[in-house]
Amino acid sequence: MGRAIRIIGIDPGLRNLGWGVIEVEGSRLAYVASGVVHSNSKLALAARLRELYDGLSSVIRTHDPLEAAVEETFVNCDPQSALKLGQARGVALLAPALGGLLVAEYAANLIKKTVAGSGHAEKKQIALMVKFLLPRADAASADAADALAAAITHAQLRRHLALSASPLA
Amino acid sequence: MGRAIRIIGIDPGLRNLGWGVIEVEGSRLAYVASGVVHSNSKLALAARLRELYDGLSSVIRTHDPLEAAVEETFVNCDPQSALKLGQARGVALLAPALGGLLVAEYAANLIKKTVAGSGHAEKKQIALMVKFLLPRADAASADAADALAAAITHAQLRRHLALSASPLA
Repeated sequence: MGRAIRIIGIDPGLRNLGWGVIEVEGSRLAYVASGVVHSNSKLALAARLRELYDGLSSVIRTHDPLEAAVEETFVNCDPQSALKLGQARGVALLAPALGGLLVAEYAANLIKKTVAGSGHAEKKQIALMVKFLLPRADAASADAADALAAAITHAQLRRHLALSASPLA
Repeated sequence: MGRAIRIIGIDPGLRNLGWGVIEVEGSRLAYVASGVVHSNSKLALAARLRELYDGLSSVIRTHDPLEAAVEETFVNCDPQSALKLGQARGVALLAPALGGLLVAEYAANLIKKTVAGSGHAEKKQIALMVKFLLPRADAASADAADALAAAITHAQLRRHLALSASPLA
């Protein structure tokens, strides 16, 4: 057992940045809140990144998580799309780092495997498993469900991170 | 003529982020300062982005520019490299936006054309032209010279931006 720890999961995207906060105490998980930060596609890129940063920072201030888990998207798309996604990911990593949170990154297929048992699970299966593990979750959007899945993955794996880090400490 | 305006040019990169501050008054340009913010490649990505953000924000606080010009790199590399560059660009756009600066983006070949007369100019030619236009510039690094070139481009083109925006104002 131990003290309850709050974790924020983040699914970065330039248009929609999904987030989900959970609480973990030993092996028990509890849903806290989730949602999506949108950016206005009519604004210039710098202004859109600022919208994402301000929205995510406000969520972090409100729910005060101690650790963050960010989805590490596999990009097989064209370099221009990867650049665009990278800019949103930069903000998704920076906001919790500036807030003093520990920030972990998890590959999308590791998240799928941890939450749904298969690295090739579909979005729908992920959403169903999130709902099963966090019955009170109101994950109306797929982006918020993916963010909660990242948070759940961190809740499962953070103890191993701690164990593997301890011999070096 | 008009009041002197300070411009910061930024050449984003995850390992080395070049910056250069100039002052423009009418058609006169003056060098203020330039340098490179480094990130430690042994740190986790979120910590590296924080190093870039803290370094760039400190430069902005010290030199207090009013407008920022960020190089819009053309990426023909693999998607993973584009994603990495995108993360650094996200920070390079966010830091001035949070500081309240106007942020403009310029394609790399437009910067080359404006500064050296050709969109295919080599790095060495750019550095020579920067030195010619800003004799007091101490652009020891190519990244800082590229950043100064972005600032010079904005100094040349910002009047056209203002003219093209005015009918809508």
